[in-house]
Amino acid sequence: MAADSNSSRKSWQGRLSADADAVTAQLLASIDIDVALWKYDIAGSLAHAQMLSEVKLISKDEFAQIRRGLLSIAADLEAGRLETPADLEDIHMVIEAELIKRAGEAGKKLHTGRSRNDQVALDLRLWARDAADDLTDLIRGLQNSMVEFARRQGEVIAPAYTHMQRAQPIVAGQAILAYVEMLQRDVERFADARKRINVCPLGSGAVAGTSLPLDRPRVAQLLGFPEITRNSIDATCDRDFLAELCFGCAMLAVHLSRWAEDWIIYSTTEFGMIRLGDAYCTSSSMMPQKKNADTLELIRGKSASAIAALTGILTLIKGLPLAYNRDLQDDKRFAFPIVQAMKQCLAVAAGLVSTARWDEQRIEEDINKGFLDATALAEYLTSKGVPFRQAHHIVGRLVAQAESEGLALAQMPIEKLREASSVVTADVYTHLGARNVVKDYKPHGAAGAEQLRQQLDYWTALLK
Amino acid sequence: MAADSNSSRKSWQGRLSADADAVTAQLLASIDIDVALWKYDIAGSLAHAQMLSEVKLISKDEFAQIRRGLLSIAADLEAGRLETPADLEDIHMVIEAELIKRAGEAGKKLHTGRSRNDQVALDLRLWARDAADDLTDLIRGLQNSMVEFARRQGEVIAPAYTHMQRAQPIVAGQAILAYVEMLQRDVERFADARKRINVCPLGSGAVAGTSLPLDRPRVAQLLGFPEITRNSIDATCDRDFLAELCFGCAMLAVHLSRWAEDWIIYSTTEFGMIRLGDAYCTSSSMMPQKKNADTLELIRGKSASAIAALTGILTLIKGLPLAYNRDLQDDKRFAFPIVQAMKQCLAVAAGLVSTARWDEQRIEEDINKGFLDATALAEYLTSKGVPFRQAHHIVGRLVAQAESEGLALAQMPIEKLREASSVVTADVYTHLGARNVVKDYKPHGAAGAEQLRQQLDYWTALLK
Amino acid sequence: MAADSNSSRKSWQGRLSADADAVTAQLLASIDIDVALWKYDIAGSLAHAQMLSEVKLISKDEFAQIRRGLLSIAADLEAGRLETPADLEDIHMVIEAELIKRAGEAGKKLHTGRSRNDQVALDLRLWARDAADDLTDLIRGLQNSMVEFARRQGEVIAPAYTHMQRAQPIVAGQAILAYVEMLQRDVERFADARKRINVCPLGSGAVAGTSLPLDRPRVAQLLGFPEITRNSIDATCDRDFLAELCFGCAMLAVHLSRWAEDWIIYSTTEFGMIRLGDAYCTSSSMMPQKKNADTLELIRGKSASAIAALTGILTLIKGLPLAYNRDLQDDKRFAFPIVQAMKQCLAVAAGLVSTARWDEQRIEEDINKGFLDATALAEYLTSKGVPFRQAHHIVGRLVAQAESEGLALAQMPIEKLREASSVVTADVYTHLGARNVVKDYKPHGAAGAEQLRQQLDYWTALLK
Amino acid sequence: MAADSNSSRKSWQGRLSADADAVTAQLLASIDIDVALWKYDIAGSLAHAQMLSEVKLISKDEFAQIRRGLLSIAADLEAGRLETPADLEDIHMVIEAELIKRAGEAGKKLHTGRSRNDQVALDLRLWARDAADDLTDLIRGLQNSMVEFARRQGEVIAPAYTHMQRAQPIVAGQAILAYVEMLQRDVERFADARKRINVCPLGSGAVAGTSLPLDRPRVAQLLGFPEITRNSIDATCDRDFLAELCFGCAMLAVHLSRWAEDWIIYSTTEFGMIRLGDAYCTSSSMMPQKKNADTLELIRGKSASAIAALTGILTLIKGLPLAYNRDLQDDKRFAFPIVQAMKQCLAVAAGLVSTARWDEQRIEEDINKGFLDATALAEYLTSKGVPFRQAHHIVGRLVAQAESEGLALAQMPIEKLREASSVVTADVYTHLGARNVVKDYKPHGAAGAEQLRQQLDYWTALLK
Repeated sequence: MAADSNSSRKSWQGRLSADADAVTAQLLASIDIDVALWKYDIAGSLAHAQMLSEVKLISKDEFAQIRRGLLSIAADLEAGRLETPADLEDIHMVIEAELIKRAGEAGKKLHTGRSRNDQVALDLRLWARDAADDLTDLIRGLQNSMVEFARRQGEVIAPAYTHMQRAQPIVAGQAILAYVEMLQRDVERFADARKRINVCPLGSGAVAGTSLPLDRPRVAQLLGFPEITRNSIDATCDRDFLAELCFGCAMLAVHLSRWAEDWIIYSTTEFGMIRLGDAYCTSSSMMPQKKNADTLELIRGKSASAIAALTGILTLIKGLPLAYNRDLQDDKRFAFPIVQAMKQCLAVAAGLVSTARWDEQRIEEDINKGFLDATALAEYLTSKGVPFRQAHHIVGRLVAQAESEGLALAQMPIEKLREASSVVTADVYTHLGARNVVKDYKPHGAAGAEQLRQQLDYWTALLK
Repeated sequence: MAADSNSSRKSWQGRLSADADAVTAQLLASIDIDVALWKYDIAGSLAHAQMLSEVKLISKDEFAQIRRGLLSIAADLEAGRLETPADLEDIHMVIEAELIKRAGEAGKKLHTGRSRNDQVALDLRLWARDAADDLTDLIRGLQNSMVEFARRQGEVIAPAYTHMQRAQPIVAGQAILAYVEMLQRDVERFADARKRINVCPLGSGAVAGTSLPLDRPRVAQLLGFPEITRNSIDATCDRDFLAELCFGCAMLAVHLSRWAEDWIIYSTTEFGMIRLGDAYCTSSSMMPQKKNADTLELIRGKSASAIAALTGILTLIKGLPLAYNRDLQDDKRFAFPIVQAMKQCLAVAAGLVSTARWDEQRIEEDINKGFLDATALAEYLTSKGVPFRQAHHIVGRLVAQAESEGLALAQMPIEKLREASSVVTADVYTHLGARNVVKDYKPHGAAGAEQLRQQLDYWTALLK
Repeated sequence: MAADSNSSRKSWQGRLSADADAVTAQLLASIDIDVALWKYDIAGSLAHAQMLSEVKLISKDEFAQIRRGLLSIAADLEAGRLETPADLEDIHMVIEAELIKRAGEAGKKLHTGRSRNDQVALDLRLWARDAADDLTDLIRGLQNSMVEFARRQGEVIAPAYTHMQRAQPIVAGQAILAYVEMLQRDVERFADARKRINVCPLGSGAVAGTSLPLDRPRVAQLLGFPEITRNSIDATCDRDFLAELCFGCAMLAVHLSRWAEDWIIYSTTEFGMIRLGDAYCTSSSMMPQKKNADTLELIRGKSASAIAALTGILTLIKGLPLAYNRDLQDDKRFAFPIVQAMKQCLAVAAGLVSTARWDEQRIEEDINKGFLDATALAEYLTSKGVPFRQAHHIVGRLVAQAESEGLALAQMPIEKLREASSVVTADVYTHLGARNVVKDYKPHGAAGAEQLRQQLDYWTALLK
Repeated sequence: MAADSNSSRKSWQGRLSADADAVTAQLLASIDIDVALWKYDIAGSLAHAQMLSEVKLISKDEFAQIRRGLLSIAADLEAGRLETPADLEDIHMVIEAELIKRAGEAGKKLHTGRSRNDQVALDLRLWARDAADDLTDLIRGLQNSMVEFARRQGEVIAPAYTHMQRAQPIVAGQAILAYVEMLQRDVERFADARKRINVCPLGSGAVAGTSLPLDRPRVAQLLGFPEITRNSIDATCDRDFLAELCFGCAMLAVHLSRWAEDWIIYSTTEFGMIRLGDAYCTSSSMMPQKKNADTLELIRGKSASAIAALTGILTLIKGLPLAYNRDLQDDKRFAFPIVQAMKQCLAVAAGLVSTARWDEQRIEEDINKGFLDATALAEYLTSKGVPFRQAHHIVGRLVAQAESEGLALAQMPIEKLREASSVVTADVYTHLGARNVVKDYKPHGAAGAEQLRQQLDYWTALLK
């Protein structure tokens, strides 16, 4: 291999001497990803320029020229008419260079009292605020789909699983509303993150502020920020808000992965509990009979991207000295794609839920498998004074007996049951069988129809 | 190697056939780590038993026996007098088994209406609530040390760095208070997480609740929870609150890593800006002259543990079907050690800050290196009407000239400065030099003495 | 909360002033984890001392005293007779301090030409070499269990799944041997890692080597290293070999998680394909009927620990300047527990496989579900000249038709088949049905009985 | 917020009902990233078609038509002339659909005996093989730049650091060659990974193989694979090779981050040890005097992307059941960008090294700071019979004394030295001072000029 690797090395060096500048420029450039910031950059510059004119650092006329220029650039970017030349490494440079072309000397004054550092910090916060809001909206959409599903077929009696083994009977809506709970925590987390996003850093300069008499509260007001940052060094190198957004996405993605896993399993031939809309399934290039839940699998898999993005942004910041360091340029490469992916997943998930239905017949057929009423029987004994540990033991043996005889507990004759425990009386049968068990659930939040209705009322009120 | 690996395989198989049960038991056991939950488990059981007696599921007398038993077990655990036998795999079993020994039949009733699943969920939430509170206290301690340091030597004129290059002059306290800002966000995040921790899951059973008439709000009240969980399935398998605690730790650890990195660099021979207390440094086993900032390095390194713990707990939950799965047993292996490590780091960090001092003489000697006043000069030109982009360019050339002549900007004769830009007048010198620059800082949050005092007032009021 | 947090802060400060030294000592200490290195530390010191005596840096008599001392310390450590005092922060200090007690002045010479830095690097490599060997042995054990299982019940005709949907029929052993393939790559990776582990760093000093005439090749020879490191700086701060070991564990753990996931699903009531040994399942504290595959879930979950350990050790090293930095002390906290956990998982997995069996009757009952022979029918058409894309389309429609009529493909009358494609003749039925399909598999590595036997022969030869 | 979120939810639902299909299609599509596979897809299809014709599954003429079609498609893709329509979700579909347009019925036969699953597995392996080779070439290029730098200015006497504190004197080349060692392990790891990449999966079908008589060894031969996969299930869902490639990148990126960190610190005003080429530095938008090592910071930061990619791909695979699942579609999103980024970093790093130089004058000026010869003095005492632990202690006190008197050790009068230890004689001065210390280094791999030359010879021979 030595000879080979040597010769290819030489050709690489040939290439490099020609391309060194090009590769360096590629490494330095972020225009491919930060182009997504354009509208925030324009909005920030408009507010900054207006404030500059109000404090007389530029004239009214200069502000008017800048404003006109920025609005025309925005129109061109919106319409896809503006080139973003490769040699201008980021969207901020593209816009400033273009502004100078369009607004002349006035354009050269836009950067007065401003640094790329506080400008980027501002743009990212504006972007992140929208991201948090969009994600919140889409989660609400998914929660609504789920609540509707839980209302539509919520009272079907179905098995709950622990360890993937049939555990106890529930109303099926209980399993759906469990995801709604998870999503609600996601909503709350994005709201909490938003408080820390929603602080205006502009006016912090490169690291230390500026000697120019900027009116920071005014800029904040113009951009809808209720607060300004307190410390110029922190303001220019704080990326916590992006990490927190990524954490919000990771937690959300993990929730979606749990739901997707459940439904992938529930839609197997073997479980057969749920039917998915055809639009969300695909076939195989080789196997003509296949109907695969590919969208669920992609949603499940996105949790890996989300965990990776979070790991990445934290590792990026780890050990960085104060204040801004160029490493931070890659913050966007973690935050932007995962927010985009989560938006897609949420929209698709809402569609999946809206078009799915429980296969009630199949669920009904299988409902007596797995001794789902065993716990209820133990609790029956408990209610008659048998200590729970002992009741548990008694029922354990009864289940073994029933299994060997191919019977459900409800099919065991009263004598057998009384043999196991003399406290049993004929009323026991009104507590056995999945349907009876579900009827008996007592505490708040348990898996009965009554508790389901309470939850549905709660969500309906909250989400309306 | 084939022969070798073969023979060792056989010996391994020999070992295994003897040890299979032992290794399986080790894998299943969590007693080594969940022993830390003992006081929460006792507290939870006391509240559960009291409620059981109040709703008449057990008698007053049985409750009294259970209570006596649990309190005596607690006393023995506190004193280290209770064995935790290897064959009882977790602390919950240890305590219940012991209770049955001490309280007899009454002990067998403790688990009435309760599952290991909701019991563990409860214990973890009680632990996490304390963890969030302890971390908050310790962060407050570190913030106080930092605020005191910023008050003690805050107005020393020092360089701020961006990209590790000397950038602009600041009052040194500004750099310290930047970390206080970061820590404040950590405090807020733990407070936000605490809201989601502080919800009582007990009464959710294994997955579906129970047919027994438990009074869930009463248990919550006894344990100081303002709310109860709404959905039994979610309640028994929700570990978001641990993941969120781990995220809080990761963000905190990353903040500490930035501070540690700064101070490691500042305490090099070359920078020489800070002097650390001897108690926080160690020497070398081989090199007799060394004084290394080992504690700072360990604190920096803990960020890796924190990021790993967060990655781990999220990956653990990823793709798990509803509801409880045994994978979750490892949640503690991520959350417990990192909380402990963060507590240590915070305590040591507070000590480091309290005993450190800026080397004012050394900082003063070097303050004129690196043209820290270049931006101020550009802003001076701007204030006289030169567009900033042009001013920036002019000063760039002046710096090159000054550097080649070995002069500071303040040492350049007025003619040279006026050659570069005719707007310059004699007052320019009152704006050059680090001390003058710092005096000129205008906006909120900038790095001047006035702004520092405002920040100190803010923190003093908040932290007192 | 202000008042509260204030008061607790004060109490914390009270505690701290008393405890500052204790907490700092805890942070600096690694004795809780590096005690696992003791036998490697003794072995390394013995070799170092022997070399010192051979090059006359110490006398033969001094070596004899050192040797006696070290061997007696080893005996005491083995027997658990030696205290490891809290104030000696690591196992290296414990042993050296003890040696000086036992061997007097000679003991003080052991560290001649050696630094903690190269000493630790050596110990870690000796540990890692054993770890790689132990893991390899245990993987071989699991591979053997799997090969035996594939031989025992390998030719059962079972469904293969893609996307968790029934895909094509296979001999069941094919699914088992897929994991054996994965494990074989793990074995190879550990062998590759071992090459990079197995290089002797001793003699590299703290960072630059030493002025003393050490014989590095001799030490390497005494410790069984085929090579010595080439560069003293790299040698003292290289932890790649631990990261590579962690990667090996992560990949292995991910493989085990796939297997565990499959078997968890296969052992549900709904799939019912596999029966697990009772020793590897546990019950529920609340639900008397449950038999959960807890060991499989714990094994699945360990992949999170392994991925976390890998993320952690890489993040730890990220951005560390040359050479040794104390951050690296935490390398062990990532590598040691995951190697231990992987050993447990492998041993338990081998036991799980040895005691499991396919439920042949249940598999047989369900084998005609899911149109497993659809691809075979398309290939039948292809072999008669129908372009595959068209054949795929034809069979897709036939499956829809069969499904609506509740028939298997093999049950469709010849006329229907010929209607769909005129190339069909009566021989088509010899290619339909799971058993026929499996018989028809042609290429190397396909899922037929013949190919299975070839694979079994391969593994039997390799693993014997 | 309720009202707001409600109204935006509705608008989102409006959007969704229109866009549901579009968003679902976006989630399913991978064409944006797998377009990079086009040349591997064409190559694989050419080999597959040739084999099909050789085993008579298609005619020679059909093969000729397919071949012509594929080559014309390749030409169009190369020239950027082929549209990749949004509704064809991946590059494989784009090419097959286009082929059917160009080659008619023959085109429909290309997929004979092939599934998307084994086709993608093949393409990814071809891509990964090239990736490993390209990375190896580029690492070789960087190693060469470093070796040349170590030759150019390698014998400058410079400080080595541990814990960022001045430790011992070295020839500066030793620090450079430490990175060459790290990179060499990276080269070896990519070579090891390549063995596992370089195995042909084609012919494994969707999961079980095929009933058609494919000649798998022939396809492997045509594509330059020395081996074929042994098990169809493993072959279609194995992504270990991508994870291993990502690990190789992560380890490499961590190495580069260590080097970048060193050079960022060395190029500060305070250290002033290294001068970087202007082409690799950038200025500030606000501070006219700045010259920042942005390229080094970006390289350091890419370690976060690499660790994230590795975490991501492992987490993606975690817990996936056999065999192919659509989650795996995202494998490319982890592997492709990080390989691309590593190529850029390596090319830029080689340029950085080629254009950098040690500032010999500045290093020389500072060489006597930090008592770099303290260890040498302790070893001098040791060579005269003082036990090392005692010698270390003696020198420790001498350093303290020298520091308080503002002297270097070499400046201390002989009487003072003899006071500390009577074994000192006049020859001690020939061992003090950085230059003397470096001359004295003895063992292999130590930091002296002689050992440097040996290393340079080694690398020159290996890399030539």
